Amino acid sequence: MTEFVDKYRNELLLNVMPFWEKNSVDHQFGGFFSCLDRDGTVFDTDKFMWLQGRQIWTLSTLYNQVEENPVWRDMAEQGAKFILKNGRDAEGDWYFSLDRAGNPLVQPYNIFSDCFASMGLAALYKATGKEEYGKVAEDTFNRILERQHNPKGKYSKAYPGTRNLKGFALPMILSNLSLELEHIVGSATVETLIDEVIHEVMEVFYQPETGLIMESVNLDGSFSDTFDGRLVNPGHTIEAMWFMMDLAERRSDKALMTKCVDIALRALEYGWDEQYGGIFYFKDILNKPLLQLEWDQKLWWVHLEALVCMAKGWAYTGDPRCKEWFEKLDSYSFQHFADPEFGEWYGYLNRQGEPLLTLKGGKWKGCFHVPRALLKVYKTMETIPVYK
Amino acid sequence: MTEFVDKYRNELLLNVMPFWEKNSVDHQFGGFFSCLDRDGTVFDTDKFMWLQGRQIWTLSTLYNQVEENPVWRDMAEQGAKFILKNGRDAEGDWYFSLDRAGNPLVQPYNIFSDCFASMGLAALYKATGKEEYGKVAEDTFNRILERQHNPKGKYSKAYPGTRNLKGFALPMILSNLSLELEHIVGSATVETLIDEVIHEVMEVFYQPETGLIMESVNLDGSFSDTFDGRLVNPGHTIEAMWFMMDLAERRSDKALMTKCVDIALRALEYGWDEQYGGIFYFKDILNKPLLQLEWDQKLWWVHLEALVCMAKGWAYTGDPRCKEWFEKLDSYSFQHFADPEFGEWYGYLNRQGEPLLTLKGGKWKGCFHVPRALLKVYKTMETIPVYK
Repeated sequence: MTEFVDKYRNELLLNVMPFWEKNSVDHQFGGFFSCLDRDGTVFDTDKFMWLQGRQIWTLSTLYNQVEENPVWRDMAEQGAKFILKNGRDAEGDWYFSLDRAGNPLVQPYNIFSDCFASMGLAALYKATGKEEYGKVAEDTFNRILERQHNPKGKYSKAYPGTRNLKGFALPMILSNLSLELEHIVGSATVETLIDEVIHEVMEVFYQPETGLIMESVNLDGSFSDTFDGRLVNPGHTIEAMWFMMDLAERRSDKALMTKCVDIALRALEYGWDEQYGGIFYFKDILNKPLLQLEWDQKLWWVHLEALVCMAKGWAYTGDPRCKEWFEKLDSYSFQHFADPEFGEWYGYLNRQGEPLLTLKGGKWKGCFHVPRALLKVYKTMETIPVYK
Repeated sequence: MTEFVDKYRNELLLNVMPFWEKNSVDHQFGGFFSCLDRDGTVFDTDKFMWLQGRQIWTLSTLYNQVEENPVWRDMAEQGAKFILKNGRDAEGDWYFSLDRAGNPLVQPYNIFSDCFASMGLAALYKATGKEEYGKVAEDTFNRILERQHNPKGKYSKAYPGTRNLKGFALPMILSNLSLELEHIVGSATVETLIDEVIHEVMEVFYQPETGLIMESVNLDGSFSDTFDGRLVNPGHTIEAMWFMMDLAERRSDKALMTKCVDIALRALEYGWDEQYGGIFYFKDILNKPLLQLEWDQKLWWVHLEALVCMAKGWAYTGDPRCKEWFEKLDSYSFQHFADPEFGEWYGYLNRQGEPLLTLKGGKWKGCFHVPRALLKVYKTMETIPVYK
């Protein structure tokens, strides 16, 4: 695996991080620009809290895990300064977006803003030891736990009671978040949340008949034949599986590890576009027409999470199917998403694999999935080389 | 134009309406199924208020303008019965969607549900003379006027005051709605709303530098260099232009008519995909990356509204450019959207012009744009044949 260690480390440190270091800092108002065109030009100055928090996390994590580079720490801190000053409403909930100067644009209707703010500040606390970051990370985490059963609050458009579905995004992210905050909230909290998420993902959302994980199920775990209930997001399933693999490793649970590998491979086979290559963004489990007009597009994060998942599956278990899929995904991704000329990766390809948008960052894409995946792939292969 | 009169009348009466007559009525719970797959199979039973109201309008309008066919009137009435029983909350605002049995699913966050309910009931009142329909149409219209400056109410996610943009969808639809309710609300109300919408569309949202109409502008009418402010929706512009042409005709305003034709032609040239044909769904006026991942897709309603617009431009003014564009659009649309095998038209094509989804109806497509456009094209060419 040595070739991949070097390839992914070099891509991270030479082609991806320099793009963000050079182009994303707002030296006038603080915080990060995320709307960057192919060559790094800022094409819009709005600031989205998901991406502010995520970039703070990425920079801090690289500082914590790769190299104590003060450039990364200082960039993360200037981002933290901006969000701590402007990011929260009177209740301490995090806005969805701000304008360049930090004025709120969109209300805190989306609890994932809070998740990524907490995650970023927790990593920065680890990097700097400054109490303020740990304190706000923890307060935000507790507020998320309070809001978790009604995360959209008054902004929810669903009429209460008619159709009670539950989604697996929030339990997933909560257990991930608790791991990121283990140095702050303690292992007991983490273990409780892990018990819950393993049960939810592997037993409630997993459907044995199809071998797949649904995005939403009825409260009792049964299938809902509705637009939401029929939806499969292969990338999300695959991302969940590498996260579950880490939990299986943490607990030395071989049965769980095997099940994770099987589900991930099933989701890859199910999601792969045999005609043009790449993984579809969405599918309907009954092959009915989807609401998502972007269903056939190829998104960067889907492929990066799949690379992480297959790298971990390969390293943890030595399963040759994981090796094969890793190499297939590696080939597709570097051919279609990477941009050796300007750095960073394209985000959105059409079904045929051509860039649908020229952007490297936007409302939903920032300094996160690409560097995180490159880091995880090379660390996985470097530290757990079961098979060389 | 006789060939087109026959072609569009036959498509309406032989290929499109039979599809809805046969497949869309819910004989058990009342109302209409709109989620119909290629062959008319019901693939989902949720009921969306936009499409319930619009189908009532279409059926009633065909009854009023084409033929007093009791099948259409009775279908419209059973739909009206369903929405009058289930469609409104305690304030009289219309839900966005209901489940099959009529239980509310999504709250009244979207005022266009109210617009289409009012429009449908007003046409049904004309068809039947039954006071109840006229009364609810009028009450709903008045409630829309009350809500128009804060249409999303408590469901709005925008933080008040930071970025005040205005969109042209609501003024457009209000003046259209007032025309549809002229037999109920009277001509004085209509004329006032027409004055306002002509000013807004042709002077405020129209940008002389580009010759195009923006979806959103600052409150003073100036350009906003933001995601929303940069957005051009060529189909929406073109739809607005045939509506403005009708107002120009109503007022015998030749200068307005000429301006409408010029803007519509400009939007067509701007929106046309030279590589694959068809009109793009969205463009960014500064050619920056868009938020809309579906930007390059070819949507049914865009092409149908363009057909209506060029038919009217051709009939009202005799401009040969309108004739040329009409024929080009006619050729593209019948080749790519129409489905002679099962009736109705596909809704969503990929950039290359192939069906992206197999559906004939869904959450946003129902018995409306196809029949309305076919009706308007053939009526326009039949009744205003300036040039034969």
